[in-house]
Amino acid sequence: MDKFMKEAIKEAKKGRDEGGLPIGAVLVKNGKIIGRGHNKRVQEDDPVLHAEIDCFRNAGRLGSFKGTVLYSTLQPCYMCSGAAVQFGVKKVVVGESENYTGTEDFLESRGIQVVDLDLEECKRMMGDFVDSNPELWKEDTGDI
Amino acid sequence: MDKFMKEAIKEAKKGRDEGGLPIGAVLVKNGKIIGRGHNKRVQEDDPVLHAEIDCFRNAGRLGSFKGTVLYSTLQPCYMCSGAAVQFGVKKVVVGESENYTGTEDFLESRGIQVVDLDLEECKRMMGDFVDSNPELWKEDTGDI
Repeated sequence: MDKFMKEAIKEAKKGRDEGGLPIGAVLVKNGKIIGRGHNKRVQEDDPVLHAEIDCFRNAGRLGSFKGTVLYSTLQPCYMCSGAAVQFGVKKVVVGESENYTGTEDFLESRGIQVVDLDLEECKRMMGDFVDSNPELWKEDTGDI
Repeated sequence: MDKFMKEAIKEAKKGRDEGGLPIGAVLVKNGKIIGRGHNKRVQEDDPVLHAEIDCFRNAGRLGSFKGTVLYSTLQPCYMCSGAAVQFGVKKVVVGESENYTGTEDFLESRGIQVVDLDLEECKRMMGDFVDSNPELWKEDTGDI
């Protein structure tokens, strides 16, 4: 498997083990991980701490994220996709887009390449969480 | 002036007085402010802490932000606009869109009403900052 997605999955598992949502992300620049994070919405009681936001945050103030590649275990929501657009990310690689979808067109319309690895491991990890915690998940998707 | 925009301007001034970017936001639900914040990117060395993100964060985990109105002293960037879309905000009221623009169509295409108050006070406050700190501002716009 893609080595960067493997790291994003590690992050997702950290989140799950903390009692939070199993979604992880890493940000890659010139072949190196410059930021990593996972969804901490439950853990920090913070509605904006999605995995990708946590990841950008941990990457810190680089000055520029232009040309970076964002790996996420799940298709990013609109906030996180908007962050990718705003920060000049050139490519978004997702583990799956079965448990969340709908932002691909937005990303592509802003010139960001989207690659869906369609990984069983990611689908199962997220699917199990959604099945066990439907209300928590609805908070993230805004469906509540 | 609109009483909620007045509060967003107060937040922006707090940010400016802390040495940060003069951008403020408040989130309103049923006529009451449920969250407020200002850009803390410089103060907390955090690339995602734009005013609107700080505002959502301070509103906390409501379960739902559906039907809220977001007031911001400046037209929100893609990350913050994406957050408004994701969280089901129904209307975005901005103090100005002269110092930043471009996300109106995205918001409107997702069914969010955008109202631009085109306020001299907001334009001057932000314009003065951009003139004095062009590099800091470029970090936020992704132009660096």
